[in-house]
Amino acid sequence: MVVVMKTSAAQQDVDYVINRARSLGLRAHISQENGHTLIGLLGDVRALDSTVLSGLRGVQRVVSLQQPFRLVSREFKPDDTVIPLNGCQVGGNQVIVMAGPCSVEGRDELMEVAWAVKEAGAHLLRGGAFKPRTSPYSFQGFGEEGLKMLADARKETGLHIVTEVMAPEQVPLVSRYADILQMGTRNMQNYALLHAVGESGMPVLLKRGMMSTIEELLMSAEYILSHGNHNVMLCERGIRTFETYTRNTLDINAVPVLKELTHLPVIVDPSHATGRSSLVRSVSRAAVAAGADGLIIEVHQDPENAVSDGYQSLTPAEFAELMEEVGAISEVLGRSICA
Amino acid sequence: MVVVMKTSAAQQDVDYVINRARSLGLRAHISQENGHTLIGLLGDVRALDSTVLSGLRGVQRVVSLQQPFRLVSREFKPDDTVIPLNGCQVGGNQVIVMAGPCSVEGRDELMEVAWAVKEAGAHLLRGGAFKPRTSPYSFQGFGEEGLKMLADARKETGLHIVTEVMAPEQVPLVSRYADILQMGTRNMQNYALLHAVGESGMPVLLKRGMMSTIEELLMSAEYILSHGNHNVMLCERGIRTFETYTRNTLDINAVPVLKELTHLPVIVDPSHATGRSSLVRSVSRAAVAAGADGLIIEVHQDPENAVSDGYQSLTPAEFAELMEEVGAISEVLGRSICA
Amino acid sequence: MVVVMKTSAAQQDVDYVINRARSLGLRAHISQENGHTLIGLLGDVRALDSTVLSGLRGVQRVVSLQQPFRLVSREFKPDDTVIPLNGCQVGGNQVIVMAGPCSVEGRDELMEVAWAVKEAGAHLLRGGAFKPRTSPYSFQGFGEEGLKMLADARKETGLHIVTEVMAPEQVPLVSRYADILQMGTRNMQNYALLHAVGESGMPVLLKRGMMSTIEELLMSAEYILSHGNHNVMLCERGIRTFETYTRNTLDINAVPVLKELTHLPVIVDPSHATGRSSLVRSVSRAAVAAGADGLIIEVHQDPENAVSDGYQSLTPAEFAELMEEVGAISEVLGRSICA
Amino acid sequence: MVVVMKTSAAQQDVDYVINRARSLGLRAHISQENGHTLIGLLGDVRALDSTVLSGLRGVQRVVSLQQPFRLVSREFKPDDTVIPLNGCQVGGNQVIVMAGPCSVEGRDELMEVAWAVKEAGAHLLRGGAFKPRTSPYSFQGFGEEGLKMLADARKETGLHIVTEVMAPEQVPLVSRYADILQMGTRNMQNYALLHAVGESGMPVLLKRGMMSTIEELLMSAEYILSHGNHNVMLCERGIRTFETYTRNTLDINAVPVLKELTHLPVIVDPSHATGRSSLVRSVSRAAVAAGADGLIIEVHQDPENAVSDGYQSLTPAEFAELMEEVGAISEVLGRSICA
Repeated sequence: MVVVMKTSAAQQDVDYVINRARSLGLRAHISQENGHTLIGLLGDVRALDSTVLSGLRGVQRVVSLQQPFRLVSREFKPDDTVIPLNGCQVGGNQVIVMAGPCSVEGRDELMEVAWAVKEAGAHLLRGGAFKPRTSPYSFQGFGEEGLKMLADARKETGLHIVTEVMAPEQVPLVSRYADILQMGTRNMQNYALLHAVGESGMPVLLKRGMMSTIEELLMSAEYILSHGNHNVMLCERGIRTFETYTRNTLDINAVPVLKELTHLPVIVDPSHATGRSSLVRSVSRAAVAAGADGLIIEVHQDPENAVSDGYQSLTPAEFAELMEEVGAISEVLGRSICA
Repeated sequence: MVVVMKTSAAQQDVDYVINRARSLGLRAHISQENGHTLIGLLGDVRALDSTVLSGLRGVQRVVSLQQPFRLVSREFKPDDTVIPLNGCQVGGNQVIVMAGPCSVEGRDELMEVAWAVKEAGAHLLRGGAFKPRTSPYSFQGFGEEGLKMLADARKETGLHIVTEVMAPEQVPLVSRYADILQMGTRNMQNYALLHAVGESGMPVLLKRGMMSTIEELLMSAEYILSHGNHNVMLCERGIRTFETYTRNTLDINAVPVLKELTHLPVIVDPSHATGRSSLVRSVSRAAVAAGADGLIIEVHQDPENAVSDGYQSLTPAEFAELMEEVGAISEVLGRSICA
Repeated sequence: MVVVMKTSAAQQDVDYVINRARSLGLRAHISQENGHTLIGLLGDVRALDSTVLSGLRGVQRVVSLQQPFRLVSREFKPDDTVIPLNGCQVGGNQVIVMAGPCSVEGRDELMEVAWAVKEAGAHLLRGGAFKPRTSPYSFQGFGEEGLKMLADARKETGLHIVTEVMAPEQVPLVSRYADILQMGTRNMQNYALLHAVGESGMPVLLKRGMMSTIEELLMSAEYILSHGNHNVMLCERGIRTFETYTRNTLDINAVPVLKELTHLPVIVDPSHATGRSSLVRSVSRAAVAAGADGLIIEVHQDPENAVSDGYQSLTPAEFAELMEEVGAISEVLGRSICA
Repeated sequence: MVVVMKTSAAQQDVDYVINRARSLGLRAHISQENGHTLIGLLGDVRALDSTVLSGLRGVQRVVSLQQPFRLVSREFKPDDTVIPLNGCQVGGNQVIVMAGPCSVEGRDELMEVAWAVKEAGAHLLRGGAFKPRTSPYSFQGFGEEGLKMLADARKETGLHIVTEVMAPEQVPLVSRYADILQMGTRNMQNYALLHAVGESGMPVLLKRGMMSTIEELLMSAEYILSHGNHNVMLCERGIRTFETYTRNTLDINAVPVLKELTHLPVIVDPSHATGRSSLVRSVSRAAVAAGADGLIIEVHQDPENAVSDGYQSLTPAEFAELMEEVGAISEVLGRSICA
C-alpha cells in the first residue's frame, strides 16, 4: 500500500500518517515524487481498510498494491480448483450443465422436467424450493415440501440437486436434501449467510450480485473459504446496467477475468442474464466459448404455464438443441460436456 | 394489466391467454388497436407476476396499470405517516437528524461523540455494533458489547439509538438495546430479515440497496408493512453508477419521487452518498431543500483515527455548522429541526 | 400507441387527449380497463414523440406498440442485408475480420502490421488517421497524411480500409481514401455527421455509444438509412457500467438481440470492449459463438511501443492464434471466415 | 505518474519501462515497495496517455498523481471565473436563471413565454432552433428562422439568448443571434465542435454527457479553454443510471465536486435531470442549496400542447413559485438571484 500525499501536505501531516501506520503495526518507507511525498507501507496490510488512511489530512490517494482477497486468488493457489460432483470434475476439463425449472411447482411436473433435462445431457437438476420474490404477494416456494420433491427426483433420475438457501437457519435443512447450496444474487453480501454456508462444508454456487463488481464477488467467496469451505463455484448471472431491452446484461468479460484472478470454477446463467428464452442459446454458446466451466439453464416442459420466469425458460426440445451446440463448441476448445 | 398481442398472433394465441387468465381467476376484455389485440385483465392482479403472461406465444408486451405495492402507497393512505421518536414527529413538519460514528469503537469515544452531536442538535445517535464488511479480515464490530455501550449512551445523553441488524436471529437482541432497527443497503432484499423486522414492530430505517430501484425499495418496505409493522422510514443513501469520483451517487430525485409515491418518511444519508467529508455539508443542504424528513450523518471526534469510514466523517465542529445551515433551509421551507 | 388515463382523470381530460390526437391527424379508440380509460391512437404515430401526450393532464402512461425505427427493422426487411466488401459478403454466411493498429503511426509501421494481419487472415485494415482523444494534449492523429498511408497499404496488400470520420466536412476527404467510414462511439448521436455519412453512400461501421441503448443505436442507423444509405454495419464495442476492472463491459446479449430486431450486419470490437489484450481472444470466441458477423481487432507489431491503446493490442502472433480459434468456432456454426 | 511493477517483473522489464520513459523525455526515479518496483516519472506527463505504459511487460498498474486537466483546474486558477452576462455576474455571488421552451415553436408563442419568464425573474431565454432528436422522423427545429425569433425576443424583452449549436459549420450562424452557445449532452465529446466553439470566443454552456464522468466533462471544457475561450459554464443535467422512474438521475454530488475541482461556474438543468415537471421545483431548490451558480428550466405557457418535452415543462405560474423558493434559499446562503 502506498500513501500519496498532496503537494500541499505539511511535514506534520506526513509524520501523522507514519505514526498512524506504525500504530497499526506497519513500517513506513518514504520517497519523493514530483513534489509528492510517497509513503510505502510494509507489513500485512490485507485487513487494513484503506479509508482509515485516505481520510487523514494531506493525503491525496491511497494505492493498494495487493489484491484484497487471498485464499481465492491464483497467486495463493495457481492450480484450478476442481470440485467432484456426481462423477464430474467441475473446474477441470469438463463443462457441466445444470438445468431445471425456476421453481419446484409439483412432484409430477418436476419429475417430467428432470427426466427431460437428463435425457438431453444435463448433470444436475436446479429448482427453487425457497424463492426470493420482490413482492410479498408472489408465490414464495414450497419450502421443505419442495426440497423433498427435489430429493425424490434425485433418487429417481440420479441427477444431483442445486437449490437456493435464503437464511442462515435454513442451511442445515437445505443441506439434508441438496448437493449444492445456491446463494442468490440478492444475498451475495449477506454476511451471516456466507458465514453459515462457509461452515457447512457443502459445495456452493455463489451468484454474483446484479450490481456487484468482480472484486466484491471474490471477496464474498473469500468469506466462505475463510470459514474453511473451498468448494465454491462462482456464477456470472448478468449485471444491472442502463440497457432495459434485456433483463440483465451478461458480463461475458467476467469469465476470462475470473479465470485469470481465481482458481475457482466459473458457471454462467444465461437465463437470468438475458431474461428472454430466444437469446439463451446464443448466449450459452458464447459463455462456453469464453471459457466457462459450466452453465445453469432454466428449462420447463411448458414455459407458457410456468409459475415464474416462463419468459426465460427453454422447452426440453430447445434445451436439447442448445446441448448439441455447446457440446460442439466445447470440443473445438478441447473440452467436453460431462455426461 | 393489459396484454398487448403481436400483430402476427393467431386467434388460438389470443384464446390461450384468455384461458390462462381465467384459470388465474381474472376476467378478460378484448379490444383491437392498429392490428394488435389488446386483452385487458380485470380482477386482483397485484400478486400476479407479469412474466407468467409475457412468456406466452404471441404476446408482445404486458403493461401493468397498477403499482405493484399497496400498503406503502399514497393511494392506499394519502396522509403522511408520522412516527413519534423521542418527542419528535418524523415525517411531519419536523426534520430529524441522526448522527454518530460509523462503528462503535469504545465506551469513552462513543460518549464523547454522543455529547458532541447532542449539543449540536442531533436527536438520535447512530453507531454500528454489527458491521457488514466487504472483507472477512476487517473489523466486524463489537457485537452485543457495542449495543450495551449504545444503551449506556442513551441513558446518559437521552439520545435515542439507531443501529444495524444483520440477521433474523439478531432482531430480538438488537431490539433490546436500540430504538430504531437499521437495515443496511446490502440487506434490502434479504427477505428473511425483512420478515423478522416486520414482526418485531420496532421502528425501522430501511436503506435503499445501492443497486435497487425506487420501486424495489418500496416493495421491500411493503414486506415489512405486510407483516404488520408500519413504522418504516426509507433511506436514500446513494446508488452505484459509472461515476467513480464519489463513493456513490446521491439520487436526489428520489426524495420528491418517494414523497409522491408513498406516505412513509424519507431520510437521506449524505455521508455514504458522497463518501467524502468535504461534500457532506452541501449535499445535506440539498437533501433538506428537496424535502427530506431527516438526515443521518457520520460524525467522529477524530475522523483521522476512525476505525472505518473516517474519510466521510465530519468533526463535531463541522457537524455544528451543517446543523445551522440545514436549520436555516428548513425554516425557509416552513419546517424546523426537531430539537 | 395507447394512452392510459389515471383512474382520477376527468371526462374533460379524456376529451382533451382525443382532441389533441385528432389535431395530429390521428383517430382515437376508447375502451375501459379496471377504472382506467384507454385511448388507442390509430394512424401514423411513428414521428410522434410520446412526451407530447404523456404531459397531458390525467395521463398515467403512454404505451408505444410500434418500434420507433422502421427501415432498419426486420419487419420492414426480413432478409439479412449483405454488404459486399472486397470479395466478402458481410452479413451473410461469412465472418469478416478487420484488424490493425489503433492509430496510424508511420508508413513503415503500418505496412508491417498490414502484411502481418493479412497473413493471419484479416480482410480489412483498421487504423485511425483522425483520432478522437479525451485530452486536447494527446496525439490527435496524422490526418490526411495518415489517410494516404492507409491508401498505400491497400494498394500494396489488397486489404480494404476502415477508418474513422469525425466531422461532416471530413466525409468527402475520408471517402476518397477509405472503403468503410467508421463512426466512433462518441459520435453515435452526432446528427450532423449521421446526415453527412448517410448522404455519402459509403459503407459505414456505426459504433454503439458507450452508454447508448440498443434502441438508440438502431435509431442512429435509421438516420443513415433514411438518407438513402443502406450499407450500414452495427458495432457493439462495450458499454459503460459500474464494473471498472475492464475498460468497458461487452454487451454480448446485444448480438442476438440485434440479429432479431434488424437485418443489418453486427460486428464486435473485443479490443475496446475489454481494454486488456489478455481478454481479447476469449471474448472474440464468444462474439462469434453468439452470432456476430465480424470482428474488429487492434493489432500492433510492438504493442509495448504503441502510441495509443497498446494495453489492448494483440501481437501478430496472438492475432494469428485468435484467427484459428474463431475459424474453428465459425465452422461449428456452419459459417466460415472470409479469406 | 508512478509505474507499479508486478512482483514477478524481471529487471529487463524495469529497464524497458525506464528506457521508454526516457524516450518520451521523462526522467525516472526507482524505489522498492514490498516486492514491487516503483518507477516515478518526472517531467511533463500531462499529455502522456497512461495506456502507453500500462501495456508494457511486467507493469501492474500506472498511477496518475496529477489531474489530466490544467486550465480548468482550481490549482491553475484558484479564483472563481466570473462571466458577465447581461448585467449579471455568473459564477460570483449571484444565482442566474435561464428559462424558456424546449423548442422554439413560433413567434407569438415564444414572445408570450419570454415575457412570462422575464416577469418571474429569469435573466436569459432558452429555446432550441436546431434540435437533436433521436428519431429522424421527429421535428428537427426551425433552424435559422428560429434563431431570428429568438433574436426578436431579445430585442423586445431584453433577455439574453442561450441556444444549441450542433455542428462546427453552424457556429458562425448561431453566434450572430445568440449570447450563449449551448453544447448538448450528445455532443460533449464532439471534438470538432469543441474546437469550433473554442475558437468562437462566445460564452458557452457545456452540458455534461449523460454518460460522461466529471473528469471527462472537465476534459471537454479543457478543449474549449485550450483554444483560447475561457467563458465556459458547466451544466449538470442528469446522468443515465439503472433507475428508470425518472428520465435521468441528477448527480447532485457533482455540484460541490465541480466547485472544488474547477473555477468555472456550474449550472443545473432540473428539467432534463428529472423529466417530470412535478419534480422540478424540489430539485431546483436542492441544486441551489448545493451551491449551483444557476439553473436552466423548461417553461411553456401551455405544456400540454408543447411540441416536445411538455412532460417536463413548467407553466409560468409554477415557474414563478419556483423562483420565490430558490430566491429564499439563495438568501439563506448569502447569495441572490440576479434580477
